[in-house]
Amino acid sequence: MAFSVAIAGASGYAGGELLRMLAGHPEFEVRTVTAHSNAGQRLIDVQPHLRSLAHLTLVDTSAANLAGHDVVFLALPHGASGALSAELSPDTLVIDCGADHRLEDAGDWAAFYGGDYFGSWAYGVPELPIPGGGKQRSRLIGARRIAAPGCNASTVALALAPGIHAGVIEAADLVAVLAVGPSGAGKSLKVPNLAAEVLGSANPYAVGGTHRHIPEIQQSLRWAGAVNPTISFTPVIVPMSRGILATATARLVPGTSAAAVRAAWESAYTDEPFVHLLPAGHFPRTSDVLGANTALIGLAVDEAAGRVVTVTAVDNLAKGTAGAAIQSANLALGLPETLGLSMNGVAP
Amino acid sequence: MAFSVAIAGASGYAGGELLRMLAGHPEFEVRTVTAHSNAGQRLIDVQPHLRSLAHLTLVDTSAANLAGHDVVFLALPHGASGALSAELSPDTLVIDCGADHRLEDAGDWAAFYGGDYFGSWAYGVPELPIPGGGKQRSRLIGARRIAAPGCNASTVALALAPGIHAGVIEAADLVAVLAVGPSGAGKSLKVPNLAAEVLGSANPYAVGGTHRHIPEIQQSLRWAGAVNPTISFTPVIVPMSRGILATATARLVPGTSAAAVRAAWESAYTDEPFVHLLPAGHFPRTSDVLGANTALIGLAVDEAAGRVVTVTAVDNLAKGTAGAAIQSANLALGLPETLGLSMNGVAP
Amino acid sequence: MAFSVAIAGASGYAGGELLRMLAGHPEFEVRTVTAHSNAGQRLIDVQPHLRSLAHLTLVDTSAANLAGHDVVFLALPHGASGALSAELSPDTLVIDCGADHRLEDAGDWAAFYGGDYFGSWAYGVPELPIPGGGKQRSRLIGARRIAAPGCNASTVALALAPGIHAGVIEAADLVAVLAVGPSGAGKSLKVPNLAAEVLGSANPYAVGGTHRHIPEIQQSLRWAGAVNPTISFTPVIVPMSRGILATATARLVPGTSAAAVRAAWESAYTDEPFVHLLPAGHFPRTSDVLGANTALIGLAVDEAAGRVVTVTAVDNLAKGTAGAAIQSANLALGLPETLGLSMNGVAP
Amino acid sequence: MAFSVAIAGASGYAGGELLRMLAGHPEFEVRTVTAHSNAGQRLIDVQPHLRSLAHLTLVDTSAANLAGHDVVFLALPHGASGALSAELSPDTLVIDCGADHRLEDAGDWAAFYGGDYFGSWAYGVPELPIPGGGKQRSRLIGARRIAAPGCNASTVALALAPGIHAGVIEAADLVAVLAVGPSGAGKSLKVPNLAAEVLGSANPYAVGGTHRHIPEIQQSLRWAGAVNPTISFTPVIVPMSRGILATATARLVPGTSAAAVRAAWESAYTDEPFVHLLPAGHFPRTSDVLGANTALIGLAVDEAAGRVVTVTAVDNLAKGTAGAAIQSANLALGLPETLGLSMNGVAP
Repeated sequence: MAFSVAIAGASGYAGGELLRMLAGHPEFEVRTVTAHSNAGQRLIDVQPHLRSLAHLTLVDTSAANLAGHDVVFLALPHGASGALSAELSPDTLVIDCGADHRLEDAGDWAAFYGGDYFGSWAYGVPELPIPGGGKQRSRLIGARRIAAPGCNASTVALALAPGIHAGVIEAADLVAVLAVGPSGAGKSLKVPNLAAEVLGSANPYAVGGTHRHIPEIQQSLRWAGAVNPTISFTPVIVPMSRGILATATARLVPGTSAAAVRAAWESAYTDEPFVHLLPAGHFPRTSDVLGANTALIGLAVDEAAGRVVTVTAVDNLAKGTAGAAIQSANLALGLPETLGLSMNGVAP
Repeated sequence: MAFSVAIAGASGYAGGELLRMLAGHPEFEVRTVTAHSNAGQRLIDVQPHLRSLAHLTLVDTSAANLAGHDVVFLALPHGASGALSAELSPDTLVIDCGADHRLEDAGDWAAFYGGDYFGSWAYGVPELPIPGGGKQRSRLIGARRIAAPGCNASTVALALAPGIHAGVIEAADLVAVLAVGPSGAGKSLKVPNLAAEVLGSANPYAVGGTHRHIPEIQQSLRWAGAVNPTISFTPVIVPMSRGILATATARLVPGTSAAAVRAAWESAYTDEPFVHLLPAGHFPRTSDVLGANTALIGLAVDEAAGRVVTVTAVDNLAKGTAGAAIQSANLALGLPETLGLSMNGVAP
Repeated sequence: MAFSVAIAGASGYAGGELLRMLAGHPEFEVRTVTAHSNAGQRLIDVQPHLRSLAHLTLVDTSAANLAGHDVVFLALPHGASGALSAELSPDTLVIDCGADHRLEDAGDWAAFYGGDYFGSWAYGVPELPIPGGGKQRSRLIGARRIAAPGCNASTVALALAPGIHAGVIEAADLVAVLAVGPSGAGKSLKVPNLAAEVLGSANPYAVGGTHRHIPEIQQSLRWAGAVNPTISFTPVIVPMSRGILATATARLVPGTSAAAVRAAWESAYTDEPFVHLLPAGHFPRTSDVLGANTALIGLAVDEAAGRVVTVTAVDNLAKGTAGAAIQSANLALGLPETLGLSMNGVAP
Repeated sequence: MAFSVAIAGASGYAGGELLRMLAGHPEFEVRTVTAHSNAGQRLIDVQPHLRSLAHLTLVDTSAANLAGHDVVFLALPHGASGALSAELSPDTLVIDCGADHRLEDAGDWAAFYGGDYFGSWAYGVPELPIPGGGKQRSRLIGARRIAAPGCNASTVALALAPGIHAGVIEAADLVAVLAVGPSGAGKSLKVPNLAAEVLGSANPYAVGGTHRHIPEIQQSLRWAGAVNPTISFTPVIVPMSRGILATATARLVPGTSAAAVRAAWESAYTDEPFVHLLPAGHFPRTSDVLGANTALIGLAVDEAAGRVVTVTAVDNLAKGTAGAAIQSANLALGLPETLGLSMNGVAP
């Protein structure tokens, strides 16, 4: 009765996390796992933490191998999913964890990615408010082609959209600095990703407005009601395997009370199972959400600085990638949105 | 011929780093090391990394034990140095690594620390520019009571003061987010300082305008020419024992060219041995300055966001505390400013 | 229909992991959580990663609060469970995660713990072989007082018992060195547990035959057939929040083939869901079992050294503590042994 | 008056540490730094922690570029130094930090490395005792071709040689398990060296008697008087950038007193500036020796297990590689052995 599932890119970190979560999902059955250089190996030899999937063997990433499943998750390098997905049946639910289909604006694509633009698919961080009282989840219901949001982008959008939507913070001059774990870079073999470089150090990258998630953040904020949002965005690699801790600040709209600020976030997320505003004075840690499909948000108003400060914790591989993809699949297929997804982190 | 030195609080992290640096200083000879609960123990049993000081034994922290030295470094908890230093000869050079004497404004003290205000001592981050072409080091020459700057405060001030001094960034609405190592909290026995809490996690603290280094940053920026500087300041503990990586941003003064921005920082630090502006496109990592009396600054102009972004790496215990104290001592005593201080980090 | 559960010591690391696992168990319902200094607080404020248990509030650890549940898990400091458990109904299943009731031999207790000896309870690492073809799990079926094994002890026993049981390694002169995470020490506020002490360092403790898990290891090995087992046991704290990687070696019984060695471990664990022998040439990492109720064992025969080398990975809080307790509860209550327990780790 | 120095392989971790140490050495002046793919870059752009060497530019690694210096340090991949060093003047002091010239026995080379055997050079861990009352340092005095010892090999040899030399431990059935940092693998771009793989995990490698440092350990122990030493040797990568913590155990010779055991290590190292036996009950941590040319050894006799347990801390890049090379150079050139070498670690 379960939906049959194939994972393309099952040898990587995102693919591994999809498999870990899907192994506990009652309505999905993973039948096919594909890889590139690891094709032919047992999955368990490449992803030795997935003991319950010891029966699977990696096959080549090809449309032929992916065809015939109800759901296909693509966890491939950017640029790899466009051609491949075109060969899959339009009735198959295809969820792309890469960036190829996230941006509606071809100009944004050209400015931040370059190369062929593949057009946008249904995209939504389900919990984000949109004008008129709804949420972005409406974009996903019934869809058959979904672009899962980027981990940094969804984190920052979750942090700031409620305030913009409620009109208590300004959309111009946002500033976000993120402490992020190196698993976000995948298994890319580059010197800055080596353990000896990352251990005991904090290492910035893509400083000064060049990070590819910037237009994606702006897109979500515009959908929340922002006009011309601008953001200074700086990610810093820190020595934890997973996790994003985003400190995202915005100018307080003059005359707004602290209570009104808090009410904006409270009303946005009050009924959400996976996104939680912490009580005043509490701020989240990334370990609180490790392995969970959860975003935790702490909020403060700094009157002296004239800024609202949010601190948001997300697991980049879980709520940031694999959890978002599965939550999207649940929505697309009409399953309960929370099915198979844990809201509890693994701490300490 | 060397100056005799006593260290109060030699069992802590700041005291240990002072000793490590002083062990290689040709003009200082450590004669006395004091502690509280560890008094009576061999220094090497409490600070087992200081093999060259194996001959020293910790004695009680008292004015009697500190008296009679040319230089006394105080590495004590906040609030402990006021009464103690009053008992030391005015001819003795006393350098306080705590916060008791840093703030000129009693109102700032009351707002951020509270309790008795002990008055301010000579305070200076030597490399910071001041109006008229000088540097803060002039405050330290010949002084006999010096308050060494706080680690976060000197890092953020070094990051932003050149732009304010040159008029290329605005002093209002500064935003700084810092990735910091837990050694900054000393050996304080609290749950959030436990290894299991810090490993694999990014943990914010003092969010929303409450951190005690805020008035100290503002003081340095006012000395650099700022009128009413305001700053949103958020520190995040990350799993590295030492280090501060400060991402500090400021609004670009409209109409300023990127070249003018870079020139501001270049002219401020061009001849400085311990503070370096990295070339365009380069940004520092904290491992680059581990154990060194060095601050490295990367700089970018984000035109789209309207902000100048600086990323600055400092070792909180080295340039942030012990190195700053020794550099101050060199200046106060008329020694070469760089004597006994390394500019090379221990990496990887 | 679910069994009602109380957790004593729910504010600690072991208590938190019990709760995380129980939150996903279909036959247990956590009704009561107790603590000492945190009593009166919301559980979610002390264990912010347990979002699905946000409705619970910590109450005092007392027999009155623990009474009336089907199952009581004790996650208390050593020495605290003896008196408390005496006040609970003999029909209640009580599982002690502490050491108070693990040792059969009062002399071992006196030599390694001291103080009052509370007598032993049913104790078993379910997968360990015993002479005659059975497993230790038989000790747990139907029991109402269970002492859950210590994390280091069960890891080393799982690593070595098959070889002793099969007669392919000698029980004398075993050597085990363990890399362990600091969560094993709980929230104990001592300087060696501080993050700044643990980060970037490997720190041994209890060196030279003093560790309290030694008699427990010997007890399990005797049950597997060993006569007078002796072991050199050295734990080393390394900078990971969780995990045990035990390198445990034993002298090869002369004349034994490598195939016979491998067959010993294979036959011991071939049908076990939670303990797996990896293929020749493969060795486990602790991240492979993070959060899982799984032990992974790699095996090599070093002919030149005359030793069999095993490397075993266990999560000290999961299979090492909370998972072991829940697996025991499943066995005691006649539930499927694997119910509610994950065999997949959270990696990377 | 200083000796001119060239470093081949200056872009790697070993090369970087040589440069960091040489920057503070009063009798060596680094004139030439060579690299392979990084040739043409400024040294400071590849090794941004070496601020005091900002004037140097990397040139190609060739005999022509290395010729004409008093001292050449080779920090190259294994196999690269044989041909290169043959082109250098026999009067030049050449110190190879690789393995090419360490082993006296061509059979050992064939068994553990394979490929061309280049013959052995002068090799010595200066502090290791040799029969007749001397130390291995005598092998280095006046030499012009020196093979610097491997980091793991020198650590384990320092740990065990005194006991073998004194006849208090047996040379057969030694067991060593090492917690090691990933910088020992250099900048090698392989998946197991990625930060996401290493963070939060303990990862064994070369298990079961295959590690290349085994014959080197045996060679040093034979020189200390061992007949047919055998050793089970297991390294475990842990999440610290640098450091080796070796737990090395040996069978106690029956009838030997604990005092006699301690005396063996005490007499071996009592006058050594860089190798220290800690008092009974004290054991070292790797952070105690970070960046230092120091080995710290803790010692216990486990009567019940019949083993002497040693725990030894060394920085793999410092005393383990670069410090060893510089100490060797001091000895070869007749300089004070300790010149330019720090015995103090950077902790915490």
